[in-house]
Amino acid sequence: MNIGIYGYGNLARGVEYAASVSPDMKIVGAFTRRDPDDVHTVTGVPVYKADSIIDFKEKIDVLIICGGSATDLPVMTPELAKNFNVVDSFDNHNNIPSHFEKVDNAAKQSGKTALISCGWDPGMFSLARLYAECILPGGKTNTFWGRGVSQGHSDAIRRIEGVIDARQYTVPVTETVNAVRGGDKTDFTPRQKHLRECYVVVSENADKEKIEQQIKSMPDYFEPYDTTVTFISKEEMQKNHSELPHGGNVITTGKTGNGHLQAVEYTLKLGSNPEFTGSVLVAFARAVYKLNGKGETGAKTVFDVPPALLSTKTPEELRHGTL
Amino acid sequence: MNIGIYGYGNLARGVEYAASVSPDMKIVGAFTRRDPDDVHTVTGVPVYKADSIIDFKEKIDVLIICGGSATDLPVMTPELAKNFNVVDSFDNHNNIPSHFEKVDNAAKQSGKTALISCGWDPGMFSLARLYAECILPGGKTNTFWGRGVSQGHSDAIRRIEGVIDARQYTVPVTETVNAVRGGDKTDFTPRQKHLRECYVVVSENADKEKIEQQIKSMPDYFEPYDTTVTFISKEEMQKNHSELPHGGNVITTGKTGNGHLQAVEYTLKLGSNPEFTGSVLVAFARAVYKLNGKGETGAKTVFDVPPALLSTKTPEELRHGTL
Repeated sequence: MNIGIYGYGNLARGVEYAASVSPDMKIVGAFTRRDPDDVHTVTGVPVYKADSIIDFKEKIDVLIICGGSATDLPVMTPELAKNFNVVDSFDNHNNIPSHFEKVDNAAKQSGKTALISCGWDPGMFSLARLYAECILPGGKTNTFWGRGVSQGHSDAIRRIEGVIDARQYTVPVTETVNAVRGGDKTDFTPRQKHLRECYVVVSENADKEKIEQQIKSMPDYFEPYDTTVTFISKEEMQKNHSELPHGGNVITTGKTGNGHLQAVEYTLKLGSNPEFTGSVLVAFARAVYKLNGKGETGAKTVFDVPPALLSTKTPEELRHGTL
Repeated sequence: MNIGIYGYGNLARGVEYAASVSPDMKIVGAFTRRDPDDVHTVTGVPVYKADSIIDFKEKIDVLIICGGSATDLPVMTPELAKNFNVVDSFDNHNNIPSHFEKVDNAAKQSGKTALISCGWDPGMFSLARLYAECILPGGKTNTFWGRGVSQGHSDAIRRIEGVIDARQYTVPVTETVNAVRGGDKTDFTPRQKHLRECYVVVSENADKEKIEQQIKSMPDYFEPYDTTVTFISKEEMQKNHSELPHGGNVITTGKTGNGHLQAVEYTLKLGSNPEFTGSVLVAFARAVYKLNGKGETGAKTVFDVPPALLSTKTPEELRHGTL
């Protein structure tokens, strides 16, 4: 199976690592809008100009699109689905339905298969929610994120005047997690569910008190949460906050029969968010290739993919060992 | 969707409870080898003789078979798949491939769809293993069971002379669970992974020391484990050990990129094992009905089922909310 990587940032590196250890995959190339000479891939995959992607139409079985959800993917995925089987990680939950429609139209016309919104949330967490909700239809599902770095919240802090660098950790509130595990069906507020820890490097003479206030009062991002702001040096940022860990839990509880409490929990503890996300995209790229081979074209989500298709093993092998 | 329940024990009661709260399902009846007049269903579903099942061929969309894996299901599932879409919970892992073959032949000939080995292990735990192994192909997966009642181990104790009743709890060893979570890839022995706690009621004048020795030295069942035996009264058994809780964890760890540890964990804490298993069977019965409608006949496992088919919601609804 020949894999292409479109875009080359953190997520693309995760995809490259994962595809490079998949025995059934060969990575044809990474495609960048930058000057290919300036891009050095982690496993030595060749780099091409994004413009040249159409020349690879016959050489790529699945193209994994590693762009941002705000402006890249809404344009890239429908456009690339005209010529390629694709996988993307579109994660703007509210806009998934319209993204799906656009991609579905393009892929149905071209006879390609396009899996959108893959990764861990949306992705593996979505699957955890779906399975548990179908098994316990009267139950309640809560998703907790973290402890982990939120790229969006870190960026929001960086846009404040006087801020040089910032890292924001989303942290689930332990007592709430435990209450949910015990079957508490309260609709907890954002503040009850997560804390936000901010580590901030500021320029000399910056007004720290003002910056802290600006962060804590930022609507949507920080105002609805208990937020801590810690000012650190550039060196400390590099030393203690250069990784991108993340994770979280999807917890569903419900009662069956005469009131037996049933609890289902799916937990991720990720040393590297982009590398795990990349690994999920690669496993689903395998399924996309197989779905296309069966004539299942158009847009798909992780909900539409029979799990066996993710594996390099045959159904017989899976029944022998994994089942 | 019209559901039939074949066999009527603990699992069937769990199925009945789950189907009775599914708005898209109607339970046609429970079918028993006992005298129907002696069987009282938990939600008032009518009871019929097992022999009369063929009269319901046109009235049942999916038949959920609630028999034992040792002798019932190997005969029942292939036989019933000649006339019905079926779901079973066949859980003898070693014999799954041959069971699959027999059921597949029957169901392909009849044009029916037959999902075997559904429940939580095999079932939801199998899915947890498959997804995680596909995402982290160089990783290691461990399954822990418990704390929960093992019916098979309890029965093994009951067969000892002088034993009136027994309950065996399988208990994961906390230190091993934590080591596995931390990425330890040791092949742990059965003794390192689980303890076995036995609560036993014996007849007056029984030789307790001998019974304890007989339990602890039982090959396969208890000899490979650290086992504790506690003799209790009939009253204590009824008061403290009349429920059937169970659960466990599937933990997969693997490294990505330059060595980032990634950990995936799926946990069940079940107040009632048969009611949860029944709830899983009912969700998958919905999928079996839809698969058959699409012409996907023959034997299936949970690995073959697109998750969206488990839901009462449309794919559009799932993309709006759950994804």
